Amino acid sequence: MLVFHSPLSLTHDPPYEILSGCAQPYFESPQRYHRILAALLASPAFEERRLDWRTDEVVTAELLRAVRAVHDEEYLAFLEEIYDEWIAEGGSKDAALPETFLRQDLLLQPSDGTEGRGSAIARIGRYSFDLSAPVTADTWTAALASTRVALTALEALTAADAAHQATFALCRPPGHHATDALCGGYCYLNSAAIAARHFQSQRAIQAGQGASRPRVAILDIDYHHGNGTSKIFWNDASVLYCSLHGSPDYPYYTGAASELGGPDARGLNVNYPLPLGTDDAAYLHALTQAVQRVNEFEPELLVVSLGVDTFRDDPLTQFDLSLEAYPEMGRVIGAMGVQTLFVMEGGYCLDAIGECVRGVLEGFETGAADLVARQSQ
Amino acid sequence: MLVFHSPLSLTHDPPYEILSGCAQPYFESPQRYHRILAALLASPAFEERRLDWRTDEVVTAELLRAVRAVHDEEYLAFLEEIYDEWIAEGGSKDAALPETFLRQDLLLQPSDGTEGRGSAIARIGRYSFDLSAPVTADTWTAALASTRVALTALEALTAADAAHQATFALCRPPGHHATDALCGGYCYLNSAAIAARHFQSQRAIQAGQGASRPRVAILDIDYHHGNGTSKIFWNDASVLYCSLHGSPDYPYYTGAASELGGPDARGLNVNYPLPLGTDDAAYLHALTQAVQRVNEFEPELLVVSLGVDTFRDDPLTQFDLSLEAYPEMGRVIGAMGVQTLFVMEGGYCLDAIGECVRGVLEGFETGAADLVARQSQ
Repeated sequence: MLVFHSPLSLTHDPPYEILSGCAQPYFESPQRYHRILAALLASPAFEERRLDWRTDEVVTAELLRAVRAVHDEEYLAFLEEIYDEWIAEGGSKDAALPETFLRQDLLLQPSDGTEGRGSAIARIGRYSFDLSAPVTADTWTAALASTRVALTALEALTAADAAHQATFALCRPPGHHATDALCGGYCYLNSAAIAARHFQSQRAIQAGQGASRPRVAILDIDYHHGNGTSKIFWNDASVLYCSLHGSPDYPYYTGAASELGGPDARGLNVNYPLPLGTDDAAYLHALTQAVQRVNEFEPELLVVSLGVDTFRDDPLTQFDLSLEAYPEMGRVIGAMGVQTLFVMEGGYCLDAIGECVRGVLEGFETGAADLVARQSQ
Repeated sequence: MLVFHSPLSLTHDPPYEILSGCAQPYFESPQRYHRILAALLASPAFEERRLDWRTDEVVTAELLRAVRAVHDEEYLAFLEEIYDEWIAEGGSKDAALPETFLRQDLLLQPSDGTEGRGSAIARIGRYSFDLSAPVTADTWTAALASTRVALTALEALTAADAAHQATFALCRPPGHHATDALCGGYCYLNSAAIAARHFQSQRAIQAGQGASRPRVAILDIDYHHGNGTSKIFWNDASVLYCSLHGSPDYPYYTGAASELGGPDARGLNVNYPLPLGTDDAAYLHALTQAVQRVNEFEPELLVVSLGVDTFRDDPLTQFDLSLEAYPEMGRVIGAMGVQTLFVMEGGYCLDAIGECVRGVLEGFETGAADLVARQSQ
């Protein structure tokens, strides 16, 4: 399997985040990238595609167009500009972090969209929902590079002559908590959502005007609910969003089974909130249900938001999954026979993250091969 | 002038808050109480009324009734219960602090009011808008005691045989940032708003059914916009809210001159946002305008939200007011001849806070006496 990654991901290295009111070392660390890459490249089954852009080549017009198809223009300007603005106002060089949050129930009259323009700290609080998305000098570049990794992996997957059933985008920072105009939970740009939209746009260009959008399914197996992805496609009938996640847990206010999608896409948002302590059997049972739902949707592309913070020793989460679960998860997904883009999301147990990711991807290949074997019988 | 205070205010002593992403010693410290009290009692013009309740006597039915007339029932339950819930879930003994914030734009469907019920950290994020309102083991008791100080000062002011033109409630914690269902900015219960409402209720009881609510004006001279008070009376034609405050500054998203009040109270929310660096002359000019607006409203009671963080050496703010401004501010207010309840809000320059407060209160007496002298001529 082709493994796409960019060393620019390493430049995003916030020294800390604030969890439960206390500064903590940043769990979403550059080490994660090294560990995953090392685990994959130790096996000949994986082939590296290292994207060594110079910084000024990261921002291409096509990349920005894809990003803008998902994210709010002023939010993107915020991500690009806020660190310099923060420093100019005397902020700490470590990172820009929010202080007061623009809750809509704080406002006295309906928003006119100008709130938070007065100062850096106000602008940050407009676009953040927690203190786990610090903006450093390199965050904007790293986030763009991360999304470009996803788009390049998508391109390789969907090229006319592609022989791949799946590609893996080692995205960092991750993306699934980022909404169109909010960062939080280590996420700034929602690469999985951007890739899904970009796939649809490319197909539409190929098919010509009037063609309907091809169906894309997003299967989010990160431990946490992908509130950002869910929100972005909430009312979009061309995208199915399925998420398995721990509940109750971060991000706390989304992820209920009652969230079914907007009026135009009712039933196309499918949450599987799973209790803390969920083990291999219970998890795989739910995953099988989700995969069945994806199959019924008959997508042309599957995007897997791949978090492995479901592992029992993960420092941030509360499931009881063993290492054995991961190949099985991959096998179940691979057996669908759908072209699949894996986009890296969370996973914070450095000692296991590589093995978990490799397990899913190797399992996928097994599942896909089994299907081919069955079909050729 | 009678000075009301409760030593229970001292029990609320969070070790820190998070400002701009960094832990800071808690500016709204118990020392503030000591300094103000010492400065006032050094003069024979002030007479102390120390409210030495035992803890179990703090929560009276009348106090709770007054508090509930302003604040949301579930918010009050949160304030009372959250510290124990936080500790039971393994939180730090220092204080309960939020992590992720229930922004309405995070939600996927309209709130059903149950968000945040899953865990302590989720519940805190539902009711907070920043990390400057930590809840300690004693916060609920101290906040209730603070409000009771305000109500007791109100009672002394409005008693049938009262000879006072004004009383001073040394409230701590302060209140003007607290909305009906949000804490933040050192504030939990909005004592000024509760006192204003309680005055109206008491008068209504005296006047019998059918009587209209007496008019109350709230003049907020804290450096920061009193977003909580503004929101509570936003659409209430019986209450005029006037605020002088630094802009742009905390709480960032409210306080614009365009905020005029709801449809039933248009023009009764009057903001005077003043630029950073505002000096004595500019401030007193704006205050004179605000006082004129209060006079036009012909209130039966004036509540002054008295913050002295307008002082030039205050560590949290950006005005350039000298010590000489404070007696003049008091004089202008006293010259209105309206019964006035002073409720303490912010002020963080420990070396000056006492002198600033005394300046305002002594100035008030001077202004009130001058008025009497003029009227008797």
